[in-house]
Amino acid sequence: MTEPGRHTEAEQEVLLANEGFYRALGTADMGAMENVWARLTPVTCLHPGWTVLSGREDVLESWRTILANPNQPRIVGGGASVTVVGDAAVVLCREVVSGSPLYATNVFVREEGRWRMTHHHSGPVMVPGTEA
Amino acid sequence: MTEPGRHTEAEQEVLLANEGFYRALGTADMGAMENVWARLTPVTCLHPGWTVLSGREDVLESWRTILANPNQPRIVGGGASVTVVGDAAVVLCREVVSGSPLYATNVFVREEGRWRMTHHHSGPVMVPGTEA
Repeated sequence: MTEPGRHTEAEQEVLLANEGFYRALGTADMGAMENVWARLTPVTCLHPGWTVLSGREDVLESWRTILANPNQPRIVGGGASVTVVGDAAVVLCREVVSGSPLYATNVFVREEGRWRMTHHHSGPVMVPGTEA
Repeated sequence: MTEPGRHTEAEQEVLLANEGFYRALGTADMGAMENVWARLTPVTCLHPGWTVLSGREDVLESWRTILANPNQPRIVGGGASVTVVGDAAVVLCREVVSGSPLYATNVFVREEGRWRMTHHHSGPVMVPGTEA
């Protein structure tokens, strides 16, 4: 993990891919969301309080439901840090959903020259100075 | 991700490393826990409802606190699946703590020929057929 402004090229690419994920969320762009997720590597997803979703079809179906929900609170990501290990990378970042602080683990792999998400795990965290 | 019994050698090694993590937890063996975690790659940890911990010292200190707590409920892991991408691997597995279902994302890297944990993210999940 490195500080902002001191990223390698691969780290920058992964952070852009991570931003693309939150942009797809923020704009409810299902086509973009489909491009975010891996096509060659198995994918898994753990939404807060959901069961584990496994496989591209089930994972994308969950995002389709979320993006199509008119009552879905806006999800904002931020404060991302990244660790790259070869063709895999792990991003940790904050998520704010309806004012509730969450934290996400987003795993990416390099497929066909592009960084794609293979795993998303989001859950509640305690904000320092407050009670959980 | 593959089904049990159809694992590659690397996948088997990662699953053994993952079992070593839960064995260190189950036996409150801090020395074993220190060996589980990466020494060369930055480490991070998201305990359920905690803030994000970053760096080997802070992460190990949290486990020291957990292992030293006489009231700490037993943590049992199970149902692990693994995806290996080069020298990185992601394990998803169930955790049961005091009867509450959690799910963990455990990220490993191969360092000096050994698979070591670089990231642990554990949080509550819904069990199918029950309400969250």
